Amino acid sequence: MGNTFGQLFRVTTFGESHGGGIGVVIDGCPPKIDISEADIQRELDRRRPGQSKITTQRKEEDRCEIVSGIFEGRTLGTPIAVLVRNKDARREDYMEIAKKFRPSHADFSYEAKYGIRNWQGGGRASARETIGRVAAGAVAKKVLSVLYLNFEIVAYVAQIHEIIAKVNRSSVKVQDAEKNAVRCPDIAAAQRMESLIGQIRNEGDSVGGVVECVVRGVPAGLGEPVFDKLEADLAKAMLSLPATKGFEIGSGFAATHMRGSEHNDPFEIRRGKIRTVTNNSGGVQGGISNGEEIYFRVAFKPTATIAHEQKTVSTSREQTKLSARGRHDPCVLPRAVPIVEAMTALVLCDHALRQQAIALPSAAG
Amino acid sequence: MGNTFGQLFRVTTFGESHGGGIGVVIDGCPPKIDISEADIQRELDRRRPGQSKITTQRKEEDRCEIVSGIFEGRTLGTPIAVLVRNKDARREDYMEIAKKFRPSHADFSYEAKYGIRNWQGGGRASARETIGRVAAGAVAKKVLSVLYLNFEIVAYVAQIHEIIAKVNRSSVKVQDAEKNAVRCPDIAAAQRMESLIGQIRNEGDSVGGVVECVVRGVPAGLGEPVFDKLEADLAKAMLSLPATKGFEIGSGFAATHMRGSEHNDPFEIRRGKIRTVTNNSGGVQGGISNGEEIYFRVAFKPTATIAHEQKTVSTSREQTKLSARGRHDPCVLPRAVPIVEAMTALVLCDHALRQQAIALPSAAG
Amino acid sequence: MGNTFGQLFRVTTFGESHGGGIGVVIDGCPPKIDISEADIQRELDRRRPGQSKITTQRKEEDRCEIVSGIFEGRTLGTPIAVLVRNKDARREDYMEIAKKFRPSHADFSYEAKYGIRNWQGGGRASARETIGRVAAGAVAKKVLSVLYLNFEIVAYVAQIHEIIAKVNRSSVKVQDAEKNAVRCPDIAAAQRMESLIGQIRNEGDSVGGVVECVVRGVPAGLGEPVFDKLEADLAKAMLSLPATKGFEIGSGFAATHMRGSEHNDPFEIRRGKIRTVTNNSGGVQGGISNGEEIYFRVAFKPTATIAHEQKTVSTSREQTKLSARGRHDPCVLPRAVPIVEAMTALVLCDHALRQQAIALPSAAG
Amino acid sequence: MGNTFGQLFRVTTFGESHGGGIGVVIDGCPPKIDISEADIQRELDRRRPGQSKITTQRKEEDRCEIVSGIFEGRTLGTPIAVLVRNKDARREDYMEIAKKFRPSHADFSYEAKYGIRNWQGGGRASARETIGRVAAGAVAKKVLSVLYLNFEIVAYVAQIHEIIAKVNRSSVKVQDAEKNAVRCPDIAAAQRMESLIGQIRNEGDSVGGVVECVVRGVPAGLGEPVFDKLEADLAKAMLSLPATKGFEIGSGFAATHMRGSEHNDPFEIRRGKIRTVTNNSGGVQGGISNGEEIYFRVAFKPTATIAHEQKTVSTSREQTKLSARGRHDPCVLPRAVPIVEAMTALVLCDHALRQQAIALPSAAG
Repeated sequence: MGNTFGQLFRVTTFGESHGGGIGVVIDGCPPKIDISEADIQRELDRRRPGQSKITTQRKEEDRCEIVSGIFEGRTLGTPIAVLVRNKDARREDYMEIAKKFRPSHADFSYEAKYGIRNWQGGGRASARETIGRVAAGAVAKKVLSVLYLNFEIVAYVAQIHEIIAKVNRSSVKVQDAEKNAVRCPDIAAAQRMESLIGQIRNEGDSVGGVVECVVRGVPAGLGEPVFDKLEADLAKAMLSLPATKGFEIGSGFAATHMRGSEHNDPFEIRRGKIRTVTNNSGGVQGGISNGEEIYFRVAFKPTATIAHEQKTVSTSREQTKLSARGRHDPCVLPRAVPIVEAMTALVLCDHALRQQAIALPSAAG
Repeated sequence: MGNTFGQLFRVTTFGESHGGGIGVVIDGCPPKIDISEADIQRELDRRRPGQSKITTQRKEEDRCEIVSGIFEGRTLGTPIAVLVRNKDARREDYMEIAKKFRPSHADFSYEAKYGIRNWQGGGRASARETIGRVAAGAVAKKVLSVLYLNFEIVAYVAQIHEIIAKVNRSSVKVQDAEKNAVRCPDIAAAQRMESLIGQIRNEGDSVGGVVECVVRGVPAGLGEPVFDKLEADLAKAMLSLPATKGFEIGSGFAATHMRGSEHNDPFEIRRGKIRTVTNNSGGVQGGISNGEEIYFRVAFKPTATIAHEQKTVSTSREQTKLSARGRHDPCVLPRAVPIVEAMTALVLCDHALRQQAIALPSAAG
Repeated sequence: MGNTFGQLFRVTTFGESHGGGIGVVIDGCPPKIDISEADIQRELDRRRPGQSKITTQRKEEDRCEIVSGIFEGRTLGTPIAVLVRNKDARREDYMEIAKKFRPSHADFSYEAKYGIRNWQGGGRASARETIGRVAAGAVAKKVLSVLYLNFEIVAYVAQIHEIIAKVNRSSVKVQDAEKNAVRCPDIAAAQRMESLIGQIRNEGDSVGGVVECVVRGVPAGLGEPVFDKLEADLAKAMLSLPATKGFEIGSGFAATHMRGSEHNDPFEIRRGKIRTVTNNSGGVQGGISNGEEIYFRVAFKPTATIAHEQKTVSTSREQTKLSARGRHDPCVLPRAVPIVEAMTALVLCDHALRQQAIALPSAAG
Repeated sequence: MGNTFGQLFRVTTFGESHGGGIGVVIDGCPPKIDISEADIQRELDRRRPGQSKITTQRKEEDRCEIVSGIFEGRTLGTPIAVLVRNKDARREDYMEIAKKFRPSHADFSYEAKYGIRNWQGGGRASARETIGRVAAGAVAKKVLSVLYLNFEIVAYVAQIHEIIAKVNRSSVKVQDAEKNAVRCPDIAAAQRMESLIGQIRNEGDSVGGVVECVVRGVPAGLGEPVFDKLEADLAKAMLSLPATKGFEIGSGFAATHMRGSEHNDPFEIRRGKIRTVTNNSGGVQGGISNGEEIYFRVAFKPTATIAHEQKTVSTSREQTKLSARGRHDPCVLPRAVPIVEAMTALVLCDHALRQQAIALPSAAG
């Protein structure tokens, strides 16, 4: 259970890090949307390991195949299945972790839940699982672009460990984040982040940070008033990503230091439209978008896989030690950027279709 | 849409702040659980306005009626419906907000979504909507207590504006929070918070803060690996509450300042069980509980309703001003404590039943 | 579980035959639809016992109250809750069935499932449970009328025991069925049915029959190709009604006696539109409406409650006998007509909203 | 939408008859169940075309690949994805049906729904879509066998056109149906059916019939009282299959000719258990299994694809004619048998897990 996301734009992912492959089925995509494998591949390439010297050097080609749901370059309205094959793995490489629970990984909790786990890699807890999300996100972005003329999602690295970037949230563009390997639009900060990541890698350690995301061009009216508030679904989407520990929208935790008279966003008429003067709400009021920029921040912990020797226990319940081998990301943040965008697109696309469902043209008046 | 929460322990709420009443239908509750109206009323009384001098002085009796699903004091396995009647309201009291969008309320976004709204009070965006959640949470707590011997949820106020409480997370008990009006177990901090709230009220302003929640007695194995991670469902639950702006679990945003070697939770054998030495994970690894304490924090913004005169626009799109009248909470935090507990119970109860569904006794071995 | 129906127009019912009441929550209804308690009451009155001398003489007033979701006579887009109170029952009347399983009722299977049951009447298995469905159906009919100009659902009794009515399916109107107590548009057959039901009642026995339903004004394109085919959802809807044993759409079981060359519905152009010459398909092809009349038939078994003495076993597992007392329907068919209509409306309204969700105006072309 | 079936044992299918392939994702399967590709292939081979001279002579190898969710021969508890590749098709073969709507196929209704269709074959309306269902059914059968010691599903052909088989429902076994090409346990009838199908093929026509299904070994207590009655979910499952027009459970439509005193199933104690004397209920009372045999019948219309020249219209809305070419099934019934079994297994497995979810051991007493 729990491998499906969305009510109307329904995304089901499958696949372990090892085995036949990773994939996704998207059910509920409107028909006649232009989609090609290249559209999906472009997004997959942004999350792929080995893109730059600061990410893991493992080479994974991750070529996607559209198995169904697209005909002559357009969606059919039927389920879109996308498959990415896994590379063959050497079973011997995993013999140690077959018998030892890696600290702050999911090995132990999977074992507790299922009484069995695929110990060749991380199974479903592997970051490879996000391939399906990114593929689906590429489709969702297309749908949103058809629906909303000026729609855009921009995510970027806002913090790595103690280095905090200065970014003008309201003007930053995708290309600003894409122009360096860290995906941080503040070039000076990006350089320091890159050095830090290199140094951390050399020390066999890891660091985390914050990804910030801003969405423009969403009309007022998306979201549901109670359990499926837009911010609730965004929070769930983000906390469902591996390694995330926190989420805040608009003013976020900083709101707790403000008074109502400072925090409230007064309304005004601007260029003939009802707008808010400030945007502490983060573009959402009462769970429903108000037409302002939606922005939020996601905290990622330092990667659990480190070269340091760590204390742990074995599957036979004996105290032991473990050191990760092989090549791993000392910092997942740069690769997390397209994943945060993808999950954001899934939430918004789902709510966009939900809003269409209740908008009866003939009832209006 | 969006008024149902949970996959197996399914909670559907209904009701506006004005009109016939507020209620909830709980579908999927196991049979033969002892429940009385008193069990539910006890929790409702904790969220009720007018409990103490620091909350709003509006008197709402909020007597609950169990309409169905309970027979001779025990659940039948059929839907449990609980209804709380609204007090009659005077239509004249709402004539101003019928025509003006209150800043940082949901008036404008509802209007954008539906083209209609119940302008007598907050409609579904009113805090009264949480009555249904608290009633359902009371039932969920009962189920969890039947399932898990040492189960307990303790939520408390950890911060109001700049005042931060010192609380020993691992020893705090429900009664520690309940012994003062602020629901803060740090008595000294509680007194300062109480003074601050009184002062803020006199100034016609409002403040927010942080509610912290700790859950004990949850076995390892609850939660789903991908989209329905335990922390994802908790994040959604919390961000679905009115006035929340942020959520963090375990180390949360502070994790971004740590290295992997500091953050990882090593495993050890303690009293014959596999345990973690530290608990930066917050009791959840890979989306699945690991048997440690689950703890998280929720940020609440300052209440939007303030006595200050505020700039806004009218429904006829003209610039205007608005001052709230009547009695309102200058700080929702004390009343948010039982609501946070209720949503936590809903998430855990749902995942507990989900875990039961796949645990085939005869398949084990 | 299992008390919610629909994906987008979501109906959740609650309530036992005895206890506080019976009700329904409708989530997902579009906003700004005109609905009054009178609209709902009109349909409830059609299913009410005691309408005529051929139905049970129990008097149940069944007044409905709209608790939420309607403001100034129009839907808000928020959950519509409708409540109908139960009459007080005398506990003593049920002492016998508390201890004996009634044949072909749900007493035993409930006990097997839940280990507990409300033995005061039929609990959730009572026909009273359909009150919620009929109330929701009244709302669904309103939505469908707003969406589709010529929409109409006509159900009627087509057979009682061996008496088979002759009805022109393509011209029959609601008022044709409503003009007699049996709800059979064939007046001659209706008179014979009425006599038969009277005679069966005198004999302390019961009879079943067939309700036929025809829907006009549904555009081509509703329904989903695979699991949620329109006929699949209709079949589920009908078999979820108490006392139903069969469902057939279009040619139904008679199709098994035809050859493909007789059964296929050729296409032709009629008044400028693509139409089928015959309609063995029953208005649905590949799970999707084709714009023709949708028609289907539902088999109802004879009522299980009869005055005859019957063999059964007690809850303490001893062989015993049981005779029903009090006033019961010797034939549920006349009262089933509005219930069949209601479930049909729920299915179609849900699929109508689902179709709206994927119809992107800007994608067309 | 509508490509997912089940609440807890959730099956999502994808794939058109032409394109990359057909597949299924099963989410919610309990862990540690033994499954191999051979288990799935065995069932797929039963539905495959070209098995015998009475089915279509098209050769489709339909080799399945388990892509995820199985490790060392056992389920992981994570999504099980199964993929079957399509053969390459020659585009030219479909040029005619690209431009003409085939009578009683889904071409026109798909076009009306989506404004686009994959005209290379039947798309999602193709019988190939059932591959995913059969693969999932193979897994569901395994789970049910682990749960219930004497569980068995036996489906068989009970009628082809006017030929009606005589089968002892309570003793018939899978091997009785499997021993001839028609899958009819009445050997004499099977021979006549086989002749008839051959003759019908020669005439370029088609016939339908009835598949009967009996399930043994299901304990009392499966099913939900209201919308998700066991018979309702079975009805939906069956009517979701291509070419089905009717469903009846237990006494079915024949119940309409009986009186309550004949139809009711008296309870008795038999070998120490509460049993019914007769079984007109078909093993389900009030939507919940009562421990008796569950049996039902499904009507299949004659195959829509026939060699006869038929009247139809073109996509450019002109009157035209069409004759099917190539090799097609004159009768789908023999291949429908494993598909009916598969859908039955999906329904029962889902309800078995749902029942586990609410059965709290510690609450009993």
